[in-house]
Amino acid sequence: MKKLLNDPADAVTEALRGLAAAHPELSVDVDAKVVTRASGPTRGKVGLVSGGGSGHEPLHAGFVGHGMLDAACPGEVFTSPVPDQMLQATRAVDGGAGVLHVVKNYTGDVLNFQMAAEMADDEGVQVETVLVDDDVAVVDSTWTAGRRGTGATLFVEKVVGAAAERGDALGDLAALGREVVERTRSFGVALTPCTTPGSSKPGFELGEDQMELGVGIHGEPGRSTAPLATAREIAEASVAAIHDDMPLEGELLVLVNGMGGTPLMELYVLVDGVRAAVEGRGARIGRILVGDFVTSLEMAGSMVSLCRLTPQIAELWDAPVQTPALRWGR
Amino acid sequence: MKKLLNDPADAVTEALRGLAAAHPELSVDVDAKVVTRASGPTRGKVGLVSGGGSGHEPLHAGFVGHGMLDAACPGEVFTSPVPDQMLQATRAVDGGAGVLHVVKNYTGDVLNFQMAAEMADDEGVQVETVLVDDDVAVVDSTWTAGRRGTGATLFVEKVVGAAAERGDALGDLAALGREVVERTRSFGVALTPCTTPGSSKPGFELGEDQMELGVGIHGEPGRSTAPLATAREIAEASVAAIHDDMPLEGELLVLVNGMGGTPLMELYVLVDGVRAAVEGRGARIGRILVGDFVTSLEMAGSMVSLCRLTPQIAELWDAPVQTPALRWGR
Repeated sequence: MKKLLNDPADAVTEALRGLAAAHPELSVDVDAKVVTRASGPTRGKVGLVSGGGSGHEPLHAGFVGHGMLDAACPGEVFTSPVPDQMLQATRAVDGGAGVLHVVKNYTGDVLNFQMAAEMADDEGVQVETVLVDDDVAVVDSTWTAGRRGTGATLFVEKVVGAAAERGDALGDLAALGREVVERTRSFGVALTPCTTPGSSKPGFELGEDQMELGVGIHGEPGRSTAPLATAREIAEASVAAIHDDMPLEGELLVLVNGMGGTPLMELYVLVDGVRAAVEGRGARIGRILVGDFVTSLEMAGSMVSLCRLTPQIAELWDAPVQTPALRWGR
Repeated sequence: MKKLLNDPADAVTEALRGLAAAHPELSVDVDAKVVTRASGPTRGKVGLVSGGGSGHEPLHAGFVGHGMLDAACPGEVFTSPVPDQMLQATRAVDGGAGVLHVVKNYTGDVLNFQMAAEMADDEGVQVETVLVDDDVAVVDSTWTAGRRGTGATLFVEKVVGAAAERGDALGDLAALGREVVERTRSFGVALTPCTTPGSSKPGFELGEDQMELGVGIHGEPGRSTAPLATAREIAEASVAAIHDDMPLEGELLVLVNGMGGTPLMELYVLVDGVRAAVEGRGARIGRILVGDFVTSLEMAGSMVSLCRLTPQIAELWDAPVQTPALRWGR
């Protein structure tokens, strides 16, 4: 797989240097691999920290800014960041009201964030954690006990970020984050595999007429390898898998997410199918985001995330946000 | 090439249906293939219309909204829209102050927009045209006499769109658009080819260790097929090609654009190289946009566009914009 890189071993560091060059509103500690708002911690506001392996951009560093995260810690590609990064980020965003960790459910991330939370606690910083495990495809996958965390992470970071901005307390934010996770389910499909920088071959194999149903965001196996289907069938299969797990009703917050290598035109074709599949079950699209937000390097494919909206979640979703990858309002 | 589609012949129509489902702030005439603001024409404001072949999303329909375009006409994939589409769009956005056509320099687009402008003129709508031809790679390419129009199109649509919003007159907007084109140059590189929906093979071929320097946004041949280089070398080659044609100085508006199949992490690695190459020539990044904005389906690769800023262009770039693909301010 051809890549636009220098030494593959420097990919994350150099991408962070590029991030710093492009976004002066962020403070990027390239050596420690910690990204915070350049404005520093907000006094009296709960700080929001997330992080995880690189290769899912814009998640998480692209979501640092007003109305969303206070800090992100990128690990190496598809590798958990280390506790020291998380601790540095936690200290940096502590405004005296505690810090919330948003953690995708992968064993390495969970253990490292837990260790960082304990170290922060020893230093007198109160930390709560929201664990994201929205992927209905499989239970107990590669690197995961339980369900994997995927698209719901973006919803949690946006919704809880807005609530933190208005001054909600740490315990309330943790409860809100868990409510968003509880109301969200995701399902991904891969048309092609992806290759980590420096590897000579893809993480898995797919035949020329095959797709992986229920793929994870690191290319972990899903439910089955199946013959390549149409966009309509993929939309229907994704929404059906979610509906079987959490009956859909009312207004939904929808993410139609590209995995990195799928053209935007194809994602909009998928949106047409998702709309039909959702409406066929008596629900409807209340809010929708279409594009590459939680990616797997250059993987072709899609992930659909559906959150059953409440008036409060909708209001917080609509609130202003100013980050590199998500911007609206004000 | 595997694609997330139903019948490839319906790709553009179904993507427009998806666009309509996702963006109620747009009015999408799926049959006629014309996208306008749902709010209708603004009385006394010049209407801005662009269009071109599909496959470059979010260009152009993703740039319809306050502060940017009033209408977009998508053609079939890599195929010019027809004069009737352009005429319908022109009529739809006429608020009594005339209509500006923003046209990328491809022979089909140029002829069809010219015909539409004449028909609109016959109906009493005054039309001016800004021709975009910023690609320094080659002269007289496939489908083009002169230079190709690429990344500068986004700059023209944003900057002129902001000026139209504040009430500038048609002639002034045309002059401003030409000034932006005059001050902008672009250079693209392909790491992989792309395949149009329904085709059995890619539009061109590249060996496993090759790249195409100066590629066009439809995969047209560039200056040379060369051994795959590093991101630093590609950034240097892109900036050098631009600097040779238009000496760089002062503050630049920069687009580091993905062609559709390149991960965002790699684009940020490229940003690091572009910053070094620009600063090495005594110029600096004043504003920058990083992501997939002017694409070639699933092509892996990059395009760098550099515009020598003036205070006026910078101010108009910073002005509020509310479109599906570009949103900031207010």
